[in-house]
Amino acid sequence: MNAPDPLAREQFAELLAATREPFPASRKAYLPGQLHPDLRVPVRDIALTNGEQVSVYDTSGPYTDPNAVIDVRRGLASVRGGWIAGRGDTEAYEGRAPLALDDGQRSEDVVRLAQLRAEAAALQRQPLRARSGANVTQMHYAKKGIITPEMEYVALRENGKREWMAQYQADAGRERRLAGNPMGASIPRVITPEFVRDEVARGRAIIPANINHPEVEPMAIGRNFLVKINANIGNSAVTSSIEEEVEKLVWAIRWGADNVMDLSTGKNIHTTRDWIVRNSPVPIGTVPIYQALEKVGGVAEDLTWAIFRDTLIEQAEQGVDYFTIHAGVRLAYIHLTAARRTGIVSRGGSIMAKWCMAHHRESFLYEHFEDICDIMKAYDVSFSLGDGLRPGCASDANDEAQFAELHTLGELTQTAWKHDVQTMIEGPGHVPMHMIQANMTEQLTTCHEAPFYTLGPLTIDIAPGYDHIASAIGAAMIGWMGTAMLCYVTPKEHLGLPDRDDVKQGIIAYKIAAHAADVAKGHPGARARDDALSQARFDFRWQDQFNLGLDPETAQEYHDETLPKDSAKVAHFCSMCGPKFCSMKITQEVRDFAASKGLAEGQALASGMQDKAAEFQRTGGQLYVPLTPVK
Amino acid sequence: MNAPDPLAREQFAELLAATREPFPASRKAYLPGQLHPDLRVPVRDIALTNGEQVSVYDTSGPYTDPNAVIDVRRGLASVRGGWIAGRGDTEAYEGRAPLALDDGQRSEDVVRLAQLRAEAAALQRQPLRARSGANVTQMHYAKKGIITPEMEYVALRENGKREWMAQYQADAGRERRLAGNPMGASIPRVITPEFVRDEVARGRAIIPANINHPEVEPMAIGRNFLVKINANIGNSAVTSSIEEEVEKLVWAIRWGADNVMDLSTGKNIHTTRDWIVRNSPVPIGTVPIYQALEKVGGVAEDLTWAIFRDTLIEQAEQGVDYFTIHAGVRLAYIHLTAARRTGIVSRGGSIMAKWCMAHHRESFLYEHFEDICDIMKAYDVSFSLGDGLRPGCASDANDEAQFAELHTLGELTQTAWKHDVQTMIEGPGHVPMHMIQANMTEQLTTCHEAPFYTLGPLTIDIAPGYDHIASAIGAAMIGWMGTAMLCYVTPKEHLGLPDRDDVKQGIIAYKIAAHAADVAKGHPGARARDDALSQARFDFRWQDQFNLGLDPETAQEYHDETLPKDSAKVAHFCSMCGPKFCSMKITQEVRDFAASKGLAEGQALASGMQDKAAEFQRTGGQLYVPLTPVK
Repeated sequence: MNAPDPLAREQFAELLAATREPFPASRKAYLPGQLHPDLRVPVRDIALTNGEQVSVYDTSGPYTDPNAVIDVRRGLASVRGGWIAGRGDTEAYEGRAPLALDDGQRSEDVVRLAQLRAEAAALQRQPLRARSGANVTQMHYAKKGIITPEMEYVALRENGKREWMAQYQADAGRERRLAGNPMGASIPRVITPEFVRDEVARGRAIIPANINHPEVEPMAIGRNFLVKINANIGNSAVTSSIEEEVEKLVWAIRWGADNVMDLSTGKNIHTTRDWIVRNSPVPIGTVPIYQALEKVGGVAEDLTWAIFRDTLIEQAEQGVDYFTIHAGVRLAYIHLTAARRTGIVSRGGSIMAKWCMAHHRESFLYEHFEDICDIMKAYDVSFSLGDGLRPGCASDANDEAQFAELHTLGELTQTAWKHDVQTMIEGPGHVPMHMIQANMTEQLTTCHEAPFYTLGPLTIDIAPGYDHIASAIGAAMIGWMGTAMLCYVTPKEHLGLPDRDDVKQGIIAYKIAAHAADVAKGHPGARARDDALSQARFDFRWQDQFNLGLDPETAQEYHDETLPKDSAKVAHFCSMCGPKFCSMKITQEVRDFAASKGLAEGQALASGMQDKAAEFQRTGGQLYVPLTPVK
Repeated sequence: MNAPDPLAREQFAELLAATREPFPASRKAYLPGQLHPDLRVPVRDIALTNGEQVSVYDTSGPYTDPNAVIDVRRGLASVRGGWIAGRGDTEAYEGRAPLALDDGQRSEDVVRLAQLRAEAAALQRQPLRARSGANVTQMHYAKKGIITPEMEYVALRENGKREWMAQYQADAGRERRLAGNPMGASIPRVITPEFVRDEVARGRAIIPANINHPEVEPMAIGRNFLVKINANIGNSAVTSSIEEEVEKLVWAIRWGADNVMDLSTGKNIHTTRDWIVRNSPVPIGTVPIYQALEKVGGVAEDLTWAIFRDTLIEQAEQGVDYFTIHAGVRLAYIHLTAARRTGIVSRGGSIMAKWCMAHHRESFLYEHFEDICDIMKAYDVSFSLGDGLRPGCASDANDEAQFAELHTLGELTQTAWKHDVQTMIEGPGHVPMHMIQANMTEQLTTCHEAPFYTLGPLTIDIAPGYDHIASAIGAAMIGWMGTAMLCYVTPKEHLGLPDRDDVKQGIIAYKIAAHAADVAKGHPGARARDDALSQARFDFRWQDQFNLGLDPETAQEYHDETLPKDSAKVAHFCSMCGPKFCSMKITQEVRDFAASKGLAEGQALASGMQDKAAEFQRTGGQLYVPLTPVK
């Protein structure tokens, strides 16, 4: 294998620099804490052309802050280091000795590996763990009544700035008409730090935040908070440079990924993970069984608890915030998949099924679940209990295998909670619309309201190439019904590995689904951004309409295809209806007239008002934009 | 203005030829009638690599039939001519004399107009109308107990071929688990011609089929039938040729548009419409007020009943199958929009609002509604009662203005039915998820189950550039709840005019929404195509997976980006997990083992079977695809 190509590295460095550009008219701002005054909770302020400022949730981390000095070879500044140290319940230690095997059994090219590890040399942090007898999870603190800085951070972040929303406050009648339907969720008007604590204590929300990931900007996953989304990334087939891998992460959080899962396989995955975690402001999740399998040469039967345990510690020391653990794939459930159309489609699920079959033993993940809890609570790694038996197509949805596993996940949730380990539950997958509600109800009941984290679900199977859309429908619905985090699906799902644009397409589709769910649930303030954009649309403030959207550049580009000139950005029409006839323009005329003539008082309309009609024709009946050419 | 560019015409002719190519592995077939043996109802048969054949609904008309000889300058062959003549209740007549004004007031370039009309010379058909005292609507026949060829055609088309589905029939338990939730719809296992007749008679479905559009392949819109989609097209700013305009239509129906609305404005719209109708196998809808407005120079106040009436007759003679008529925008409702965030966003609605305001009179559409019915029933043009007061943003959804108009549309529906005029109701627009159900319930109650035809609805407002996705979510849900036809939204919505690719993106998003709704409602057989595709996926029949999808070329292209070689099309893996580790492959191994060893009998699992485990390791434990390089 060759040395990394310096040109490629340079190119990725350039790409990364471009990805750091703030969104148009946007400025990063920070909210201070009250209980913990050193908090700097990020928001993105969008300046509108009418002088207003709209402030939105910001997942992009310091990358979009022009004042942040970032060197991906050194990693991000610590956000939480002081808080963790302040609690006095952790200790630094030497950590597990790194093995060549950590980067893939076939990494026989030790020179190349040494090069790659050297690239990350400045990233190394000495690992922390809980002091003997201590439990360092957010859930543990929450149950003891402690409001951590992480919890206050989350509260501030969920509320965001609210002042600007006042002008979009509707009257009581409209508020009643538009009131959300929380579908059983209990969403307060304002999220207080105490509310966050209580939600974490009762297991209804998690704050994934490994003590070895001090760079993370805390966020919450729970049905009483904003719906979050997760994007998956993986290492390149031929890892070229730290810049390349970090750029993928930065790209995903730029478009709104709240969490990122690193699903790398094959070579150099330990080192790649170092690069990612040290440069990530969002929680990082992994599926440790993937790496464990690499360590045994891809032979599922050769997996052992010892190897798996060692891998958990390896990744916990690196700072991974949550682990997908398929501990619900029990020996007794495997036969339930035999009559399925598509069997077991989860990679982790099929690895464990194969292991159980080969040894005819109960899953070692299930049997060692309390041992796993002991590791999780020493670092505050959260469980993402994997749904290894999720359906792989609509016709396998909600079957006995799926729900048998879900029941076990509910049992494991209570075990995890006994250890104060934060836990969320993974869900399907493929579910037709009319079967989504049953899924959510089953999960809420069985898993005691632990946060649900679903992949889609896809509502149909006939849309390869468009599965981001087929699944955004299911994701929006299940999000409304109570799912706390939606794992994205890209257009390449079922077909191949997503490229940079696919990742963006998947994230935008899922931001739409998550926001649609927030609006439907009635999250306070969720609708305000829609109102601001709609108002900009009605006022023909084109630039504001673009800038308030999820993807300002694309919106503007689409608009400019037919009306490219700057003059059109303030024109009171668009190319859909043209300058001569615009319904919004007419509406405004109607409204002006109604207002000036007192027509808004409906009663007056019942009686004829011929004189007013004549007056309208005299004064305002011809208010069309003149037919001057635009381009 | 210049003469049409012959090169451009040639280019469009080439494009049109390409658009006539059948889909991969697909062959057009026709089903014969029983009551009416001359029926030839089209289906698309997809040949799978395993010898199976899957048959699907086909909207593409004769264009994808290699045996059909098509000359767009002569128009399509007549499908219904004999049926219409056979009923003996119509008469040919000279028709309304064409005016220069029909093609736009400013078509002063008579030479150019003459050229354009000459292009359509061979298209002319002498118009038909009902004989004096006759009523030629499908609803009229239905009420008299007559099963027309159109009705049998629709029944056959809705059922399609069913034989192939037998192999995807599930056992009773699975059928129970997957049973759809029709949300109050009454969907029979098999659609009989008599069922169609009954649905049309009671107004719960329409078959848009003007007697002057004999080229149409009949289809039904109703909540007990498959959910349909509509695509909008419009004339080019500079009309170049008949090939260009027809190609847009052919492109839209290729991807699955069941109906097409011609929303052309400006110049040459009469002639463009001739081109489109004569070459369209799907029903064509229009908004006649657009053309009427052109005739009065764009001044809404100058509209008169006489001009509007003349426009209805002009378009009815041409063969338009349904008219959007905004007769529910009443004078008394206009003030209800004054407090809205985005007022009136329907173009037709704002024209009528302006007219009412200017004259201080009740809408002439409302006042002359029975006169309009008299025209509709003389040609069998269906009403699409327009929602001129639909919300233009989420925060205006379900308000007093919208529902007041809806009530009036219910009243007008009953008036139309008194005249046996087929009627559907247009709906929003912009509705957050939790307010969709109320919309549907209100429509079903108020409009006596007349088919609902909605635009989306968009569930949020912050996704300009991606409104096809934001609205596909709402469309899928409202389709499930009972909407009969979904009007598509393209990625350019709110931004500009859609180009060819935007039209395709919009249609695919809406095919997904409509199919998701069909599956959720439990339409018999709707899920079989999903099952076939899922089975192909599980069997690693890549080519079948592509060909069974909504867009085979794109699916294959995405797959080939990472695994381009032909050998990969039969490979038992994809680039997502790579050759070494594929969960589906493992599942198959688990299943084979379970089957051969009797493991599917669950009880056996409870007891340990160490011997079997050893046997598995000896015989089948290492069945991975060898790590041979693929490309």
